[in-house]
Amino acid sequence: MDKEKLFAGIDIGGTNTALGLISSEGRVLQESSFSTQKYEQSSAFLGRLIDEIEQLLALMPGEFALSGIGAAAPMANFFRGTIESPANLNWGEVAFVKIMQNHFKVKTVITNDGNAAALEEMVFGVAKGMKNFIVLTLGTGLGCGIILNGEIYYGTDGLAGELGHIIVEPGGRDCACGRAGCLETYVSATGICRSASMLMAQKQCASVLHAIPPAVLTAEKIARAADRGDALAGEVFAFTGAVLGPALANLAVIFNPEAIILFGGLAKAGDLLLKPTIDSFRQNSLNIYKREAQVLMADMQDGHSAIRGAAALVNR
Amino acid sequence: MDKEKLFAGIDIGGTNTALGLISSEGRVLQESSFSTQKYEQSSAFLGRLIDEIEQLLALMPGEFALSGIGAAAPMANFFRGTIESPANLNWGEVAFVKIMQNHFKVKTVITNDGNAAALEEMVFGVAKGMKNFIVLTLGTGLGCGIILNGEIYYGTDGLAGELGHIIVEPGGRDCACGRAGCLETYVSATGICRSASMLMAQKQCASVLHAIPPAVLTAEKIARAADRGDALAGEVFAFTGAVLGPALANLAVIFNPEAIILFGGLAKAGDLLLKPTIDSFRQNSLNIYKREAQVLMADMQDGHSAIRGAAALVNR
Repeated sequence: MDKEKLFAGIDIGGTNTALGLISSEGRVLQESSFSTQKYEQSSAFLGRLIDEIEQLLALMPGEFALSGIGAAAPMANFFRGTIESPANLNWGEVAFVKIMQNHFKVKTVITNDGNAAALEEMVFGVAKGMKNFIVLTLGTGLGCGIILNGEIYYGTDGLAGELGHIIVEPGGRDCACGRAGCLETYVSATGICRSASMLMAQKQCASVLHAIPPAVLTAEKIARAADRGDALAGEVFAFTGAVLGPALANLAVIFNPEAIILFGGLAKAGDLLLKPTIDSFRQNSLNIYKREAQVLMADMQDGHSAIRGAAALVNR
Repeated sequence: MDKEKLFAGIDIGGTNTALGLISSEGRVLQESSFSTQKYEQSSAFLGRLIDEIEQLLALMPGEFALSGIGAAAPMANFFRGTIESPANLNWGEVAFVKIMQNHFKVKTVITNDGNAAALEEMVFGVAKGMKNFIVLTLGTGLGCGIILNGEIYYGTDGLAGELGHIIVEPGGRDCACGRAGCLETYVSATGICRSASMLMAQKQCASVLHAIPPAVLTAEKIARAADRGDALAGEVFAFTGAVLGPALANLAVIFNPEAIILFGGLAKAGDLLLKPTIDSFRQNSLNIYKREAQVLMADMQDGHSAIRGAAALVNR
């Protein structure tokens, strides 16, 4: 009798790595996580990762067999199967696919987190049945996955969709990329904190945010304050939506997509972010389309989207 | 003996229609043109077009046989094979493909001029051998064709690549689409004339352009003045390049393409436009790519690019 297929999904973040064993239907059967940061050498990190997968596999009954490994990582090169000198990890180039395939003898694929998120949404999420859509991953920075004609679009060197670095405000906020006014300096967890500082400087109004040192301010704290009715915190999200909306309108004009989907930590802010974004998107949209592109939030409720998305790279 | 294949290429413009018979190798063997404008009814226009093709076919020796018809037109819908209420022609919806196929009994394809231009560049022009690139057609307006993975990218409703309507200057120049600050209000033949008026208002300097009524000013006249050393006319092209460069840098970040190609009437301005565009593109580019996207001019010298591009829709 054929064994039931099992896929490993791995989400390598700059801080933590999450992994899981996932069924063909996208159910997470086993999961675990560990600190990425504490591994200064990629070899030690990969040793730990292999151990973790082996331990999860040992927990599964005999009718399951590992059929593939999918991973998402910053600066992952899909074409070469490598992780290439990610900014937050001093690893140099890591031959991820080669090492994992040598050990587990199954198909292994790696790509960036935006592409994995986009696949997840197509196979299991709000983009089921769609052929052309864009996912923005809103975390510390802003990542992206582009699905065209039902496939991830990688571009010439695997670097398509660096949407965090479209310039939306010439001469605007300094960006880590060395330029200014990039989308992620406004629309990301860090961008939202910068917007809070800006609005505190501009407005003359009371806010709980005035009591929080900028160094420990987070997008979550701003969202909580907004939920409790803090007007300035609410304005931070309105401002963020007003920056994001025109950028999405331009993407709609370029791609004529079925949807643009917001995914990731910041997407948990829900309507706080979605409502002003949709308002601003509509105000700035070109009206020649019979069907307007939808702006949607990914359903992040079960907390497994990232590893399920990584597994979807080999589970389709 | 098999007959040699012959393709009809048709470029339906708002003013004139050009057509030709083209060999498999892209040689234009017969050509003709007539006024589009004077046909108030699409049926009369199509009658004339069919007559013109028949006349060209009658000039060809017997070893050639018509194998396909490709056409480019404003508001052409590739998926439906129709021309849909183009702004400058009061035709309503025209079932172009159905009518031509009924008459000539060969495969017929229609798309917009940007897509036809992109195909032409891939099959016969500067994009030979490329898989991912973008063509901007710079005429009265700004059109676009996007080639991804070696194929035209149409989007969900066939309306992808309306790049003339990405907003590059929020609150900027009024656009015919009802919004403001669209790329084509700056980067197009009409946009260049608006820039000349703007710079004449801003600058205190002599220029031959001051002697020309705005109603009869053209991009060609500005280019000729710049070529003769008129400083203000030169600044018009510098300004245009400075607007276009950052937009191309954003496209490079989105698509990670091999090249972005400037095509069409305005592309004939050559280095006048290309040099400031490339300077501004480089200043605004994200530096993570091993190979920078090239910004190229299409070779428009032989004047047949449009009809050869249309024929390339069926000749590949």
